[in-house]
Amino acid sequence: MNVPFRVDNCSIERTLDVVGEKWTFLVLREAFSGVRRFADMQAITGAPRQVLSARLNRLVDEGLLRKEPYREPGQRQRDEYRLTQKGLDLYPILVALMHWGDTYMADEEGPPVMLTHRGCGAALEQHFRCADGHEVAGPREVTAVEGSGAKLKSA
Amino acid sequence: MNVPFRVDNCSIERTLDVVGEKWTFLVLREAFSGVRRFADMQAITGAPRQVLSARLNRLVDEGLLRKEPYREPGQRQRDEYRLTQKGLDLYPILVALMHWGDTYMADEEGPPVMLTHRGCGAALEQHFRCADGHEVAGPREVTAVEGSGAKLKSA
Repeated sequence: MNVPFRVDNCSIERTLDVVGEKWTFLVLREAFSGVRRFADMQAITGAPRQVLSARLNRLVDEGLLRKEPYREPGQRQRDEYRLTQKGLDLYPILVALMHWGDTYMADEEGPPVMLTHRGCGAALEQHFRCADGHEVAGPREVTAVEGSGAKLKSA
Repeated sequence: MNVPFRVDNCSIERTLDVVGEKWTFLVLREAFSGVRRFADMQAITGAPRQVLSARLNRLVDEGLLRKEPYREPGQRQRDEYRLTQKGLDLYPILVALMHWGDTYMADEEGPPVMLTHRGCGAALEQHFRCADGHEVAGPREVTAVEGSGAKLKSA
């Protein structure tokens, strides 16, 4: 497009400011898999304790995860981490990352995990269509236009 | 799910190893916007020269961008960077990042850019459905099952 608009309010850039870090996505992957506890996340991701703690706090501060206290018998109270709606809405990003990786990065035997429709068991697919209901195959059928928050570059 | 599978062949993790870095996504954003030249990418993203150079080389090495030589009158030959099919297939990731940011990170006036269907001008949307054609609303309607490359944890 090459339009003379500023990019400092770019939605991609702002999203990456919140989630654009490998450990953050891996924490979110675990949250979507139902993993809620610090020790489990650490064991599965292999993230260093301090890194994991910092990422979880950031995700709570940004409102993507919320803390829920729990207590195992004979233990002190701890917090579980659960996805908020804002966090759940990251799902299309995670699925898109996974599908690309399944296509281009999988071992010869194939991808480790397959996402299926709970209702019928068929494979999950991600599609584009427009608000008028037309299927959109990909970037060549898409035009970027000025949004309501577009800011012209000053001369 | 909490299944006893190893995560070292996770497709999300492997994808992030290639593209999981803020500058990398911003370079890809520019490539999808039709920006092909180093100087233009640098001017728009504000990436430090050495960082941009390293990210572009990585993306070429991984086969997401290819170099195409060009020469302006009176200048030495330089390279343009163009998306390969492997790179173009990252589009759903970029769109998912952008839509989430549009929803949760935009200024009050709204998002800076709107993606539209070239054919009719209606807004681009991203949907899930299954291979049997059912609409899938979100993560609660999805079950993760063992893929063909799943690896059990050794005891």
